[in-house]
Amino acid sequence: MDPNEKEVCGVSLSDFVVRMEEFHGFRSPGLLLGGIMIDRALGELGPTPYLNVVTETVVCLPDAVQLLTPCTIGNGFLRVLDWGKFALTGYDRMELTGVRVWIMQDRLPEYPLIHRWFERTQRSEPKPDFEDVANEIIERGSKIIECKGVRLRRPLKEVSSIPTGICSSCGESYALRRGSVCPACGGDSYYD
Amino acid sequence: MDPNEKEVCGVSLSDFVVRMEEFHGFRSPGLLLGGIMIDRALGELGPTPYLNVVTETVVCLPDAVQLLTPCTIGNGFLRVLDWGKFALTGYDRMELTGVRVWIMQDRLPEYPLIHRWFERTQRSEPKPDFEDVANEIIERGSKIIECKGVRLRRPLKEVSSIPTGICSSCGESYALRRGSVCPACGGDSYYD
Repeated sequence: MDPNEKEVCGVSLSDFVVRMEEFHGFRSPGLLLGGIMIDRALGELGPTPYLNVVTETVVCLPDAVQLLTPCTIGNGFLRVLDWGKFALTGYDRMELTGVRVWIMQDRLPEYPLIHRWFERTQRSEPKPDFEDVANEIIERGSKIIECKGVRLRRPLKEVSSIPTGICSSCGESYALRRGSVCPACGGDSYYD
Repeated sequence: MDPNEKEVCGVSLSDFVVRMEEFHGFRSPGLLLGGIMIDRALGELGPTPYLNVVTETVVCLPDAVQLLTPCTIGNGFLRVLDWGKFALTGYDRMELTGVRVWIMQDRLPEYPLIHRWFERTQRSEPKPDFEDVANEIIERGSKIIECKGVRLRRPLKEVSSIPTGICSSCGESYALRRGSVCPACGGDSYYD
């Protein structure tokens, strides 16, 4: 692994690995592959004044986006869908033109370490060593991803303000679209 | 504003403001108040070997958590609920004991700048100046938040692996719990 030779989004892979350890907590093949996917999407997209990103999984990919782009959960430019799909779309929220990048599932068997890492949740195998998978991702990761220009049906960032009001049960402010009382008082509470 | 005098989670407020600009993109009263809330929650919680955090809004708070704790969206230790409630809970995912911190809505009128900032989405007023709101948050923010020990009903982090399979329509891998085809092929697509 000679990560200094390659970059994702202008960051050397060795720097990216350091930053992912700091932010994500550990070195992750998912963030590495995610970085390559974001780099591809933004490269195809070209200059994008109003960049937004959607990820189609909650796992790993959102952190790669937050490390390599200005898009975060809390500023609303990153939207995370819980679909379990290792895919993302970068787009301009004014133009609604974007590029989606995804994993070509049928190519995975040609790349045994990536394949084992990607499918391990199903087969209950031990994790392959990070360095080994990382090498395969760096060398050959670009061969398992595909990208395509897409048109967004709508911006996924909230553009108008969300009406809020006081919950008559707990007295806290909440988004009125969630119902006549807040979700916690309405039965969705996660705590007692 | 003399931010060097105060800290949140061991980070001086001046450093925190620099880091929020880098990550979140701009200086945000929400992140500042969020930092004070996280600091309160973790202080009350004490040493927490398996720290997880839930935020009850997608706005601002998740970025404060990601900057000040090891919990991120992509590593699964931060869970974000779209309830529109400016509240969060830090908890130990093994013990399921936590501390929830929220805004005391009825106190807000005593703090005019915080009040104007917090309610601006409803009243369409211009944003108050960051420095002014920040001073009020730093000096008096702790008086508008309340905290309480809670028991989590379940860990909000996925603990078992999510079964995935191939979508018969697009050929991509997705979380099988989402249906017989992936959400995009099932009609939820955000793109054409």
